[in-house]
Amino acid sequence: MNNKFKVYFDKIESEIQKQRFSGNPENLYDSLNYIISLGGKRIRPILALAANDMFSGNIDNAMPSALSVEIFHNFSLIHDDIMDKAPLRRGKPTVHIKWNSDTAILSGDLMLVKAYEIIAKSEIKHLARLLQVFNKTAAQVCEGQQMDMNFETQDNIGENDYIEMIKLKTSVLLGCSLQMGAITADADEIECKKIYDLGINMGLGFQLMDDYLDSFGNPEITGKQAGGDILSRKKTLLFINALKFDKNEFLKIIDSKTLPDNKKIEEVREIYIKSGAKDYLKNLSENYFEKSLQLLREIDVEKENKITLSSIITLLRERKN
Amino acid sequence: MNNKFKVYFDKIESEIQKQRFSGNPENLYDSLNYIISLGGKRIRPILALAANDMFSGNIDNAMPSALSVEIFHNFSLIHDDIMDKAPLRRGKPTVHIKWNSDTAILSGDLMLVKAYEIIAKSEIKHLARLLQVFNKTAAQVCEGQQMDMNFETQDNIGENDYIEMIKLKTSVLLGCSLQMGAITADADEIECKKIYDLGINMGLGFQLMDDYLDSFGNPEITGKQAGGDILSRKKTLLFINALKFDKNEFLKIIDSKTLPDNKKIEEVREIYIKSGAKDYLKNLSENYFEKSLQLLREIDVEKENKITLSSIITLLRERKN
Repeated sequence: MNNKFKVYFDKIESEIQKQRFSGNPENLYDSLNYIISLGGKRIRPILALAANDMFSGNIDNAMPSALSVEIFHNFSLIHDDIMDKAPLRRGKPTVHIKWNSDTAILSGDLMLVKAYEIIAKSEIKHLARLLQVFNKTAAQVCEGQQMDMNFETQDNIGENDYIEMIKLKTSVLLGCSLQMGAITADADEIECKKIYDLGINMGLGFQLMDDYLDSFGNPEITGKQAGGDILSRKKTLLFINALKFDKNEFLKIIDSKTLPDNKKIEEVREIYIKSGAKDYLKNLSENYFEKSLQLLREIDVEKENKITLSSIITLLRERKN
Repeated sequence: MNNKFKVYFDKIESEIQKQRFSGNPENLYDSLNYIISLGGKRIRPILALAANDMFSGNIDNAMPSALSVEIFHNFSLIHDDIMDKAPLRRGKPTVHIKWNSDTAILSGDLMLVKAYEIIAKSEIKHLARLLQVFNKTAAQVCEGQQMDMNFETQDNIGENDYIEMIKLKTSVLLGCSLQMGAITADADEIECKKIYDLGINMGLGFQLMDDYLDSFGNPEITGKQAGGDILSRKKTLLFINALKFDKNEFLKIIDSKTLPDNKKIEEVREIYIKSGAKDYLKNLSENYFEKSLQLLREIDVEKENKITLSSIITLLRERKN
């Protein structure tokens, strides 16, 4: 079995094109088609197909699950962008900017309903189990977003709190995508649990790498100015560990109203380096990816069936943008 | 079979008390428990139980459907209140006022997920059919809300547009509640269709009566000042028909910046009366209720099984608040 990443990606893109949302009022449905057409890596639906294929399922049976996790992801982007007051998504105006906040709220709501509509097209024998993992995950993603918002006004956030937040906000949906793929391939409970845990670890590694690149990525490769988290005072793991190192010095810099942005970013980065926060983050991300590879090795299928998933993990681990 | 309205109501209230939402972060779950505890007539879950009972089902099997439509209704209230900038709901602060808009968005999202979580507890043999009607309805409710918002900036809205909007925004969920109750009682497709249509007609009668009471209700009985729709220039059927009668005179009054509120309400009401818009609305509402009673008569179960549903229709038809 070769690396089928591209095969899955094309299959999903073609399915998304086929499944254009249609209905009235047009402005509402236009906003759904707009967000889903902005593209993206389609990593979640690819994971669903890859998991199904790894367990020798019929990947067409995983397509409803694959599409539903991608649609769910886009629902969460629309609503998160309202909350974060984000003007851009993938370089284009966000839904609440292109239309307005009210339409963006409804557009997200409708998208969430559409995710469920598509799951309901799964084989009936899998429906209850798929809904169970999807429902649990969907609730957790909402919890993670609320936790993230609560952090803005909270002090004394610890490493465990932060890991719990990114687990809920990001990792569980990766775990869910893989598990839904496995369920549709009739994988047994133990293997489903393993692949879910694999997704959790991969997701944690992924998000920590995202945080790393935000502060230390090469802008020419990431395509965005480094230091966004620093300027918005986001309580990432870098922030949490820098506070432990020299609280007064760190707060003086990050809370400074007079330092120019580029100077502030530079000085904060220096603290992240000398406090060891940077290396700690990089290692932690590595460890989660390593753990996900370990879980992949433990899954009870032929080694050659694992090629695609293994290469996806490596791809995410080594990405520079 | 006696009128079991009160029995159903108590059963639902007790179930809602038992099913308190719990999880973290607490502020998110508090907002869910807050809105669901504000009470209300619980008309939608009562319809689900009544329909199940009418078809001689085991009403415990309808309880997941009953709870899910009530939770869905509360989800839509949270999000509609944000869009309408409503400060109060059932005399208490709305979720976005008591917490904030971001938490209200998430709280609605989570509530929608919880509605699906509860449907998933239905008997497996009914799950696919229940999801089908629920998904379709949920999408329509979003469409109706968008249509309602679009009306604010549209001219030339006709009677059919208005009826379509209230059908989507209000009636389909009543039809859905009844149909889900019928499905869980193993009623056949033809009867399910009839009871759904009954709900649509009842819902149209209900919403038109709501519009009537907003302009012509007795404030001592409705508990709120009459004329809210007039002052907010809402394009109700009264508005649409008054425009047809004498557009210039009507617009002069309703768009007046100088008339005091009570005077404006009084003069608009006079136009609603002399144009015939008031009587037309009252009759139309009556006709929809009459049609729903006709559909009830056509349903193929013993007459005595219809007592509760018949009395619910009469209750809604004759309500003064």
